[in-house]
Formats: sequence, structure tokens, C-alpha cells
Amino acid sequence: MNISLPSGFRAGSVHCGLKKRPEHPDLALLLADEARPAAAVFTRNRLNGAHIPVCRSHLAASGGLVRAVLVNAGNANCATGPEGIEAARHLCADLARRIGCPTEQVLMMSTGVIGAPLDVDKVEHALNPLLDASHPGGGEDFARAIMTTDTFPKARGDAAGHVAVTGFAKGAGMIHPDMATMLAFLLTDGCPSPHAAVLKRVVDRSFHRVTVDGDTSPNDTVLLWGRTVEDSGDAIEAKLTTVAQALARDVARDGEGATRLISVQVSGASDEAEATHVGRAVARSPLVKTAVAGRDPNWGRILSAASSAGVPVDPAAVRLSIGGSEVYRQGRPLVEHEQAAHRHMVDSEEVRIAIHLHRGAAFAEIWSCDLTADYVRINADYRS
Amino acid sequence: MNISLPSGFRAGSVHCGLKKRPEHPDLALLLADEARPAAAVFTRNRLNGAHIPVCRSHLAASGGLVRAVLVNAGNANCATGPEGIEAARHLCADLARRIGCPTEQVLMMSTGVIGAPLDVDKVEHALNPLLDASHPGGGEDFARAIMTTDTFPKARGDAAGHVAVTGFAKGAGMIHPDMATMLAFLLTDGCPSPHAAVLKRVVDRSFHRVTVDGDTSPNDTVLLWGRTVEDSGDAIEAKLTTVAQALARDVARDGEGATRLISVQVSGASDEAEATHVGRAVARSPLVKTAVAGRDPNWGRILSAASSAGVPVDPAAVRLSIGGSEVYRQGRPLVEHEQAAHRHMVDSEEVRIAIHLHRGAAFAEIWSCDLTADYVRINADYRS
Repeated sequence: MNISLPSGFRAGSVHCGLKKRPEHPDLALLLADEARPAAAVFTRNRLNGAHIPVCRSHLAASGGLVRAVLVNAGNANCATGPEGIEAARHLCADLARRIGCPTEQVLMMSTGVIGAPLDVDKVEHALNPLLDASHPGGGEDFARAIMTTDTFPKARGDAAGHVAVTGFAKGAGMIHPDMATMLAFLLTDGCPSPHAAVLKRVVDRSFHRVTVDGDTSPNDTVLLWGRTVEDSGDAIEAKLTTVAQALARDVARDGEGATRLISVQVSGASDEAEATHVGRAVARSPLVKTAVAGRDPNWGRILSAASSAGVPVDPAAVRLSIGGSEVYRQGRPLVEHEQAAHRHMVDSEEVRIAIHLHRGAAFAEIWSCDLTADYVRINADYRS
Repeated sequence: MNISLPSGFRAGSVHCGLKKRPEHPDLALLLADEARPAAAVFTRNRLNGAHIPVCRSHLAASGGLVRAVLVNAGNANCATGPEGIEAARHLCADLARRIGCPTEQVLMMSTGVIGAPLDVDKVEHALNPLLDASHPGGGEDFARAIMTTDTFPKARGDAAGHVAVTGFAKGAGMIHPDMATMLAFLLTDGCPSPHAAVLKRVVDRSFHRVTVDGDTSPNDTVLLWGRTVEDSGDAIEAKLTTVAQALARDVARDGEGATRLISVQVSGASDEAEATHVGRAVARSPLVKTAVAGRDPNWGRILSAASSAGVPVDPAAVRLSIGGSEVYRQGRPLVEHEQAAHRHMVDSEEVRIAIHLHRGAAFAEIWSCDLTADYVRINADYRS
């Protein structure tokens, strides 16, 4: 992985002791050479990690200007009461003092176990080493330090043209549209204005289209950060969307215990919302996800899930294909294509399920992963 | 199991060949000595098994009078096109001829694999042996023959007092409120009128409160069947509800791969619908279900699931207990009670999760089961 940061950004990581093993970094920093505009989208869960109210109030107080973002892994600082919020505030203030900027220009984000108090001392002692460890080539360090049950670091970039975009994400479980214990960062050296509107559109077509287990985490946060450029913005927004979608697919691919990325492509819907709705119903179905784990081209479960999405789908009009092989067409199974669909599931890392609703012309794609016995093992053992 | 039928009913089963092994009965019959009133509730999935339109039209044509119900396991007769519907109609007509009643007084229900044509000949050849095998003591035979991935037959009864109720159910996967590949039968020798209204209230407080995997099957059907009595009906409805709830709990207890029944008791809600909504969100959460599999009193996941139900829950006001041990109270974990909660999860077959929302006085209980690696194994291998 060779991930470069847009100009003016630095990144780094250290081990501060929130994770047990010293070879696992657990504290990470993104630092801009001067305060730059940012916007964030947060979880819709009513339970909010302590960092969320702190980020909200800092962004409001700074007018959206951000100088640094501190991220810890190994502790979600969630359901930790007023002390949790005070801990996040205190650490932002401390880091701001060391950098020499107003407190409200520093954000903090946390991911890990819910309900355990955050050890402020451990983090505080690591702040100077963390500042020392940050440099323009620190993107990979950052991506690795924010991992929890992730099996690979998630960083994507596009430096072609006059504007560079670099994205980072973490998240492998508790992932569901309207976000997850997922943290994502989109850095750029040129963003159309206003950041918040751009971010909403980008997230709706990327991170809000991932589901791993249907659970929505209390800590989800996506940050878009970078200086504003005067630009119609379409090309930059497309680039941001592409990077965000690549990260969203990475999150699904790295779903806990997963062996296959699943893409559900819904076409022929009346509108994009309807396509998204049907795609999510299929993508979150445990029966579809276990069928993919078993490499079973089980169109019956797909059809059943699509038909129970609350959309007036007519099962007799639907067409289904798996890996390009049509397995069900308007009321009838095409048994002769099942073997090819099975081969696709065995041979491809990405299982493509396409559903045509014959209701209109709208399209949406949703990403998920298969449900394996390892998902259960990870979550029966891990306290998140 | 010693399950008696209400007076005037017979039941029986045979093996007709839809399941491979001859020791597994796969065709079952319920027969009344004369046509008796009935009402049914069907799946809300847009995909419907062939038996559903046939049942609907027969109930409409007969004015709700039913003489016999034929049930096959091993084939769902779903997504089988017009031939599937014709097959169900033909078998109803054939059985009606042998019994000597109008075709519309015969219902048929199917459960098993989606998308495979139903072998009509196999069923037809077994109809006379099935009639011969039916007798007033045949309740257990019936309960066993309708099983698919069920690990135990589900029959419950209450014969105390002047009205007897006997209930049967099957279903272990594809189970979610608004029903599942779940078939259930409530037989009685005295039902308040009208059957449909009674059934709706009973189902709302029983089968609609079970979730195994969040998947809604296309074949779900609950039938209430028995002669009408003049009665205020409250006592009988309570009895029907008790039997239906016992069956609903049996369905959850027998969830595919499950080792624990989970009951989620939500109190302090503004109304019963809100309590049900929050209860379902917790009961269907894969992270809560895997935590129970791991005997982990993970109140953080419970709180997170309850807070993402779309209800304006205030996490800082919520109280949570597991097996009577309070583990979270209004913003704070009660770590000292976690060991007792863990013991409850280890020692009890039923894990009781209680959530108090502090929003009002309404209550609802939802039933689910833990999510184990065996669920994945069953569904990665079995084509349903």
C-alpha cells in the first residue's frame, strides 16, 4: 500500500496502550498545516459515542474549520456517561494546546468496545510522540492504527488531475446503512462548497449503501476535510464518490468473517430510493448471506427477500441473475443456468446479484458480504 | 408428547416421498367431522407460495367453512408458476372428492424448498392412506409430519374448562414478525365470533412477536379453526393467546442452530406498538444474538440496538437487566452485576433481557434465539 496524502496534510500513529499488544498501534492523528474547512456525517443511532457531541460542538464553534483529528481504537468511549464526554473534550484541548490552535479546531473520534471508561492518561502521554510521528507519508500508519476487527487497512486515493483525494475507513462489523462502527475520512486539497451538501450526496451513494450485519453503531462518523475551491464541482464530487465507494466496498469485503463481497444491483425500479430499499433487503438477509457462504445460487431466497422489502414488487415480473447468469425470469426458475451461477460464486471474490424489477428505470447498487460461521465466532467472543 | 385434539377433529400423517427418507413423514391431514368456520392470516411477503391464493379463494368461496387441511413438508410449492397453483387446486379437489365435500372446503399448505415443482402424483397416491391413517389421537403424528428443519414437534393445548384449544406449529428459520416459513394451526371446539378478528388479535401478540433471522417467508400461514360459540369470548381468546404464545416461544426456541431462547421484555414504552418496535430491533440484532451465543452480558449491544429502532429512546434514561440483574442504569454500566447476568445466560435455557424505556407505561415481549455457527452451517447447506 502506497497511499499519499493531499498537500498540506500529515498523518501518524503510536501505541498508547488501549489495545493490549504493543505491536498494534491504537492512536492516530491527521494534521493539516493550517485550519481547513470540514463537514461530518454522524450515526442515526440514538445512542451516541462521546466523540459525537464533542465533534458537533467543535465544528459549530469553529465554523467548520479543522486543524487536527485524533482517533483512538480499542475503546469506543460510548455509554460512558458525562465523564466520557469530558474525557474527549479534555483530550481535544490538550492536543490543541500542543499544536497551538483553538480547542474547537481539534476533533476526536473513538472506536472499539462500548461501555468501558477511556483511559485519558494513556492517551495524554502519547500525544507528543504522536505529533512527532506524524509526517506527509504517514497515510498507511494512520489506516492501520484505526483498525479494530478489520483484517486489512482501508485507504483509497485518486491523485490524477488538479485535485487529489485520499480516503481512509475502518469498520468490519456493526455495519449497516445509516452507518456503523465505521469511521471514514475523505481528505482533499480542493473541495467544492459547501462541504456538508457535497458530503451528504457522496455518503448517500457510498457508505449508506453498505450492510454487514444490519446493526447500526453508535459511533459512525464520516469526515470530509480540505480547502474550498471555486469550481462547479461535478468532477471533484465524482472523484470523491468514487473514492468513497471504493472504501465502502472495502468495508463490506472486510465484513467480519466474510469470504465474499456481495454486490446487489437493483435496476428497473421506479426511483433510486426504491432500488436502494430492495437492494438493502436482499443485502441484509441472513438467508441470502448464508447461501453465498455456501456458494448456493439460491434465487428463491433472493426473490423472497426482495419481495419482503415493503416495495410493491411483482415477483412474476422480476428477473434475477447471479454473476451474469439469469436464474429466474418472470415467474420461472432457469435451472439450466444454476451451474454457471454456482461457478461464479466459487470463482469470484465478488458475487454479483442483479435484480430487475420491471417497474421503471432507476438503479442502485448495495454492498454486503457473506455470513459465515466465523462471523458468529468473532462476535460471540469479542466484546464490542 | 400426549396431545389431544378438540372434539370432532382427526389428524394423521404418511410418507409420500417428498422427503427422501421413508422414516420421515411428509404429508399430514387435519380433518373435521363436519365443515367448521375458520380464518387465516398469511405472510406479508409479496412473494406468495401457491397455497396462499388457493387458500384465500377457497375460504372466500366457502364463506370460511373448512372441512380438511392437507399439509405437505419438503416442498414449498413457491415460485412454481401457474402450474404450482394448479397443483394445489387439483390436490384440494381430489381430496374433497374422497371426503365427499365441496372443493372449497379443503385447504392445502406447503413448506420446504422454494422453486422446485411439487410432485402431484406422489401426493395423490398417498391421499387414501392418509385418510386411513387419520384418527382423533393423531395430533402428534400431524405435528411431526409438518417439520422441516425443526428439531422438535410443536404442539400445545389447553383442555381445561368448557372449551378445548389445541395448537400446532412448524418453523425454525426464515422466521420474522409478520410471519415466516411458519405454519400454525389453532383448533378449538368453541371460538368467539368472528374468527378473523379474534385471530388477528391473537397473532399480533404471539406469532408476530417472534424473530429468528429477520427473513419473512413467502408461505407463512396461521389458521384458526373450530365451531363458533356464543360467548363474550374474553376467556377463550385469552386461552387461544396463551396456546399461540407457547407455540411462538417454541418456534423461537427451535430457531435454526439455537441454544437459547431469548425473551426481550420492553416496558415503560409510550404504547404497545413502540414497545414491540424496540423489542424487535433488539431481538433481531445479529450482534445481540451472537453475544447470547457467547453468554456475554453485552448490554452495550442491547442498548445500541434499542437506540437504533427508530423510536426516540433516550439512552440516558434507559434501564437494562439480564436475567433480573441490572447491568445498565440511566447512562451507567453496573459492572458489579455482570457476573450474575453471565451466570443466568450460562444456566438458563431462556435468556431474559428486560429494557425499561421510561417513556410511558406500555409493555411488549418479543421472542428470539441466539445466533450460532450452526445457523450458518444449516443455511449454507440447506436449500430452502
